[in-house]
Amino acid sequence: MDLPPELASWEDSAAVVLPIPYEATVSWGAGAREGPAAIIEASKYVEWYDEELDREPCEAGIHTLPEIQLTSAGPEAAVRELRALYDDLLEAAGDRFVIGLGGEHSISSAPVHAWVDRLDGDLSILQLDAHSDLRQEYHGTRWNHACVMRRVLERTDRISAVGIRALTSEERAVIRERGIATIFAHEMRRPGWVERAVEALGGNVYITFDVDFFDPAFVPATGTPEPGGGSWWDAMDLLSAVFGERNVVGADVVELAPRRGEEPSAFLAAKLVYKMIGLRTRP
Amino acid sequence: MDLPPELASWEDSAAVVLPIPYEATVSWGAGAREGPAAIIEASKYVEWYDEELDREPCEAGIHTLPEIQLTSAGPEAAVRELRALYDDLLEAAGDRFVIGLGGEHSISSAPVHAWVDRLDGDLSILQLDAHSDLRQEYHGTRWNHACVMRRVLERTDRISAVGIRALTSEERAVIRERGIATIFAHEMRRPGWVERAVEALGGNVYITFDVDFFDPAFVPATGTPEPGGGSWWDAMDLLSAVFGERNVVGADVVELAPRRGEEPSAFLAAKLVYKMIGLRTRP
Amino acid sequence: MDLPPELASWEDSAAVVLPIPYEATVSWGAGAREGPAAIIEASKYVEWYDEELDREPCEAGIHTLPEIQLTSAGPEAAVRELRALYDDLLEAAGDRFVIGLGGEHSISSAPVHAWVDRLDGDLSILQLDAHSDLRQEYHGTRWNHACVMRRVLERTDRISAVGIRALTSEERAVIRERGIATIFAHEMRRPGWVERAVEALGGNVYITFDVDFFDPAFVPATGTPEPGGGSWWDAMDLLSAVFGERNVVGADVVELAPRRGEEPSAFLAAKLVYKMIGLRTRP
Amino acid sequence: MDLPPELASWEDSAAVVLPIPYEATVSWGAGAREGPAAIIEASKYVEWYDEELDREPCEAGIHTLPEIQLTSAGPEAAVRELRALYDDLLEAAGDRFVIGLGGEHSISSAPVHAWVDRLDGDLSILQLDAHSDLRQEYHGTRWNHACVMRRVLERTDRISAVGIRALTSEERAVIRERGIATIFAHEMRRPGWVERAVEALGGNVYITFDVDFFDPAFVPATGTPEPGGGSWWDAMDLLSAVFGERNVVGADVVELAPRRGEEPSAFLAAKLVYKMIGLRTRP
Amino acid sequence: MDLPPELASWEDSAAVVLPIPYEATVSWGAGAREGPAAIIEASKYVEWYDEELDREPCEAGIHTLPEIQLTSAGPEAAVRELRALYDDLLEAAGDRFVIGLGGEHSISSAPVHAWVDRLDGDLSILQLDAHSDLRQEYHGTRWNHACVMRRVLERTDRISAVGIRALTSEERAVIRERGIATIFAHEMRRPGWVERAVEALGGNVYITFDVDFFDPAFVPATGTPEPGGGSWWDAMDLLSAVFGERNVVGADVVELAPRRGEEPSAFLAAKLVYKMIGLRTRP
Amino acid sequence: MDLPPELASWEDSAAVVLPIPYEATVSWGAGAREGPAAIIEASKYVEWYDEELDREPCEAGIHTLPEIQLTSAGPEAAVRELRALYDDLLEAAGDRFVIGLGGEHSISSAPVHAWVDRLDGDLSILQLDAHSDLRQEYHGTRWNHACVMRRVLERTDRISAVGIRALTSEERAVIRERGIATIFAHEMRRPGWVERAVEALGGNVYITFDVDFFDPAFVPATGTPEPGGGSWWDAMDLLSAVFGERNVVGADVVELAPRRGEEPSAFLAAKLVYKMIGLRTRP
Repeated sequence: MDLPPELASWEDSAAVVLPIPYEATVSWGAGAREGPAAIIEASKYVEWYDEELDREPCEAGIHTLPEIQLTSAGPEAAVRELRALYDDLLEAAGDRFVIGLGGEHSISSAPVHAWVDRLDGDLSILQLDAHSDLRQEYHGTRWNHACVMRRVLERTDRISAVGIRALTSEERAVIRERGIATIFAHEMRRPGWVERAVEALGGNVYITFDVDFFDPAFVPATGTPEPGGGSWWDAMDLLSAVFGERNVVGADVVELAPRRGEEPSAFLAAKLVYKMIGLRTRP
Repeated sequence: MDLPPELASWEDSAAVVLPIPYEATVSWGAGAREGPAAIIEASKYVEWYDEELDREPCEAGIHTLPEIQLTSAGPEAAVRELRALYDDLLEAAGDRFVIGLGGEHSISSAPVHAWVDRLDGDLSILQLDAHSDLRQEYHGTRWNHACVMRRVLERTDRISAVGIRALTSEERAVIRERGIATIFAHEMRRPGWVERAVEALGGNVYITFDVDFFDPAFVPATGTPEPGGGSWWDAMDLLSAVFGERNVVGADVVELAPRRGEEPSAFLAAKLVYKMIGLRTRP
Repeated sequence: MDLPPELASWEDSAAVVLPIPYEATVSWGAGAREGPAAIIEASKYVEWYDEELDREPCEAGIHTLPEIQLTSAGPEAAVRELRALYDDLLEAAGDRFVIGLGGEHSISSAPVHAWVDRLDGDLSILQLDAHSDLRQEYHGTRWNHACVMRRVLERTDRISAVGIRALTSEERAVIRERGIATIFAHEMRRPGWVERAVEALGGNVYITFDVDFFDPAFVPATGTPEPGGGSWWDAMDLLSAVFGERNVVGADVVELAPRRGEEPSAFLAAKLVYKMIGLRTRP
Repeated sequence: MDLPPELASWEDSAAVVLPIPYEATVSWGAGAREGPAAIIEASKYVEWYDEELDREPCEAGIHTLPEIQLTSAGPEAAVRELRALYDDLLEAAGDRFVIGLGGEHSISSAPVHAWVDRLDGDLSILQLDAHSDLRQEYHGTRWNHACVMRRVLERTDRISAVGIRALTSEERAVIRERGIATIFAHEMRRPGWVERAVEALGGNVYITFDVDFFDPAFVPATGTPEPGGGSWWDAMDLLSAVFGERNVVGADVVELAPRRGEEPSAFLAAKLVYKMIGLRTRP
Repeated sequence: MDLPPELASWEDSAAVVLPIPYEATVSWGAGAREGPAAIIEASKYVEWYDEELDREPCEAGIHTLPEIQLTSAGPEAAVRELRALYDDLLEAAGDRFVIGLGGEHSISSAPVHAWVDRLDGDLSILQLDAHSDLRQEYHGTRWNHACVMRRVLERTDRISAVGIRALTSEERAVIRERGIATIFAHEMRRPGWVERAVEALGGNVYITFDVDFFDPAFVPATGTPEPGGGSWWDAMDLLSAVFGERNVVGADVVELAPRRGEEPSAFLAAKLVYKMIGLRTRP
Repeated sequence: MDLPPELASWEDSAAVVLPIPYEATVSWGAGAREGPAAIIEASKYVEWYDEELDREPCEAGIHTLPEIQLTSAGPEAAVRELRALYDDLLEAAGDRFVIGLGGEHSISSAPVHAWVDRLDGDLSILQLDAHSDLRQEYHGTRWNHACVMRRVLERTDRISAVGIRALTSEERAVIRERGIATIFAHEMRRPGWVERAVEALGGNVYITFDVDFFDPAFVPATGTPEPGGGSWWDAMDLLSAVFGERNVVGADVVELAPRRGEEPSAFLAAKLVYKMIGLRTRP
């Protein structure tokens, strides 16, 4: 994020932002590769003070790494590259909170697998998303963004998915067979969904936040804009609960496609990242 | 909609989509003539599976007719052309569910009049709309899109209008004189509006859905974007009730003006059409 | 607003619209100087009849003054010019309801100071806004738009601020020290906020309405679009209460930046202005 | 155009601008009905002084009439309305230079027919255009914009067409049969085309200027943007010659479709109109 | 292209259009995967008659294949897939003129290699492009779009490149070492460049046309818009010469990224494809 | 510009880029304050190698300073701040070539006055521009962007202005009285204009380049887009001559308003800056 050097050094930062402008398996609206730069640009205009937390989260320090340019040789090679990078980064980061900025969702299996290994399997995933992303293969590869949670599922089935409103029959069957905790979007209209989503999670949680979780009214700037999605306050309720009641080890925010004329989407994403850092570094 | 041939043949389809890219009497923001093509393009990205219905509605078959090019000789001649076309189409379609895609709202009087005649007058109209469209004449013609429900009213006064938030004093008087059941947008904030809207309908219902029913936050891509409109879930609640409790004989979705940068609007419209087909073909 | 001469003469109008296309201290997204023209253009498409008030507010007469071109010599000189203009205008206007259209928010201190003097200090301010705008100085001047409420505070501390969701620690401290009644955006989710906001106001009220009060879903066309904002109906509830229970002496609507593709924002602003005039001229 | 009252009165103006925001028979990109307003808005930023003419053409006076709203009952009725209006206007205007702003090209037959009658047939037409517009009928009407020059041809075959680069075989045959002087776009690359175009004209000339004459690089804001078109200086060369060597009795500028983000097109059109007035009122 | 069935059957068509919406190695502005659909959509508005050729080229028949969806497993696998497809297609096509629509430029090596093999190496390449595309590797793969001509060079060095204005020192060295005939953009300002470009070609020619050959004034809708490019007439001069004097065996048009608001670019590309078919099928 | 550290250090750089995102006196289209960031972002995609100079200009080193945020207290105060900053910067820079990136044109008087003083008056100005910018005062201040060359004129009348096509009678009179060498845009169509423009300059030259010099076809992204402007090659011809024949001490590129959808404009500006650095550092 855009901060003065004294609040952004590696040494003194409690949070680390990793921009991953990867995009190679898009379905409809392209542009996710411009997501990280747009979020960082918009972060200039996010106020440091947070009136809900009543403090300035950036005082905990937020270090932003340079953009990493993954290979364009194909998604499998790219995820492999990213996995190696994450292993080194998490080792170096210690207890710093690393948050990745996509780029397309296919990148998320790299940090999830890295964390599963670091925690000997004791990891749950909170997925905020419009799509299940549970396909076995898509457009000729198992590493397409539409398959990312299926890749996650190969290592852990402790997944709590929220906001889902677009999936195939095959994916619906996987949810049933594997018992994936799922709050469909239409279920978010009934009280208690936040509690249900958190209960399905174990002690250690990785959050993968696809911004198409939000209704397109709030975030039009994404590839496949499904109507009937969550609001800002839906996200805030869920994040407040999960950061308050669980140990969030890492996170990513993906699929922002900052097309022209949609600055509000980038600004929202920047504030979302800042809010997550604020919740994580709460004294 | 964009489907493989085996799900889209005329013979085996339970639903028929008729694109009517007509636009000639626009008031403010032009573009409704590009609506049908945008909806069909966006339909490629709508998942076949519907998690609320727990099935794939497209398995009932959806046949999409070629775009019809109505005369540009004026709206009266165009509506007359469309009426003749609808008479033939409904005859041929039998119990297939025909759903028209506008184009401007002025086209809707053609299918409504066709259905009134087929049912010997036993037809109610459910109008989802921001505007009453009850003017006697507008810009020199009785066939302007702002007059469409007045043309409907000449054949039946069984109209249930929902989401209205822009009308003239003259139109307000017509509502009172003719006793048109109307749920104004500000009344949708109180419980019970769905029930009231459905109760006003008889057994056979034609749905005319002007996408400016939605708040511009959800569908900015329309000609006259009135604030304070309905949400996706408002529409779902109403449609679920009416398809569940009434016999919906036909429908149209009109006034999408897919201007640049507003793909979410086209996607929402495509999902809306698919949802209506799913509800209609429920086993 | 765009009305025929017989409804728009100075003599017979109960309301006066003053377009102030001033913009010189922008932070992020420029364009507020095109706000007044966009609102007036959009007003052509606002229906005269108001179904909630069940009358045509324009029958009370709405006179629209020509755009005033403030000096580009700097914000202090511009505010001084505007103050002098307002003194003359309010004198001439008598009990006509004068509503200013910005332009950036920095202009609002001029009418507020003018009204404070006219009422010997007996004035409260209702601020609808995402930002506190309480900085002492910003970018080298005390007359930046981010300082406007601090300038107001020099003359009166009877401020009721609603929708706030972006402020600095310094501004938070000012709120606490001076006891400014503030409904933060996250507090608008709990019942009773409208009553609290109105109770904090004295008998005479000036409303300064920054359109970034609204969530960017409803008004994307503004400079710094903060997520989590108010809806159309939130605004309606608050305005109905304040116009019903207090004497609203004047108002402004500021910070609409009508960038391309965002006509719904301008239309909403036009309807908002018309609604305020309707509420104010209620018989 | 946007001028102070002393330069814009009917009595003292040598030129009269008539905005005709008509659009009903569009083929591809809609928006021509917003053309007149965009040209007048852009005219605010055209400098009064013309360095080629070395004077301020507006000193001759330019009166701008209010927009005329033609019937939406169909193009034939609209052209008939406009013809009647032109008859009255030209009678009243005397030797004032009347220049119409479209709107779609179909409107041009009204002033041409009016002038043919006023001059007992002694009228030539200079058409700057990408399209021949010589179809007998199109989309069910003889009054479609694609037929306008065929309608003109019914009254006079003294047409000089320049910049043509899109026509049908049928239209090509009409050009050959009727001997219409035509400079195709690819012929404008050879010297002498300006002279050839002017030679084909008699003493009295009406200019109908479709802005798609220009290459889309210069005017992207039009309905059917054909590559290979003319430049600003091509237009200036031709207009200088025809105003210098012929008696230009009237003119129109049509088919500007000022879609978002294309302000340069509107500005060019405004400067073009101003330039034509400057050339016509040369002392 | 969009034609009636009788002009578009495989059997009776002299030309075949193959849409290849591939995009996976983008550098800057994404969107090339929407290129083929935009070109085909725009082709509806291209007039059939060509006034320079004085005939309707579509009468020779133009068959448009369905879009091919290449694997998203990476560019090498995608090019391999496309090569296999091209081998079959060219075998089936016989002397039909096959023209591919990209998509990103990386696809072009597939048809070129296919043609080199079919002609036992007797093939020259005419490249219209802003970039040399001669890198050995880029972003981790030898199959990036920036490497496509280097892949071509592995099979033939008979390349004539025109319009080049962006290349690296390494690419400049390759041009010198391998003696690639190159007309840099600044050399197109001197007479004789068309002749020089054609002379460098042997009897059989494949044309690969990257639309960034054009100046961004003419085609803004491309990924890396380099100023100083060619005009429509520059392209026409070169194409007329090469089709007239050489045997053009195949072609592609790539890198159109039809972003919003840039319909003129898609239209130009459609007319370009149609023009090439017209030149190729000249009796 | 975006370069690796070893080519961008202050110590080893022959050129220094100073981003000045100032904008406070806009006339029409706002956005110039986003110009510097857009140019620097676009510079990532400019190839290092220059085929006309046959070398990589960046090897001379290009240091980019952080953006300077001038006071928003008004244009006079801002220019004064900038003047002081320039005095220090030029002192520190020694013979490094300092090139400023605007921002609005009003900033240019600061570096010009600084250079006039450093060179004891021996400075000529080359102005590439659509507008004369010679007004005495505009919108209440003598420091408006429309007055910048008048401010320059107070210190030196050795100005050579090229591309002018919008000015007032008053400005025309100033040109005549003060004998300012001016190549109007329409004069650029005749050979010899480059030589005339250079001859009017003394030995030491400061170049102020307003991007509205270019025709809007090439640079639509500017505030007041005047048709009939220069091309890329016009600029290249002039710059090659002046850098070859004169001592260019400093330069600025101003008025890029990188509105949405106009990336080609930003890219052109970035390449222009890079080209000027290449010409200046020619061995």
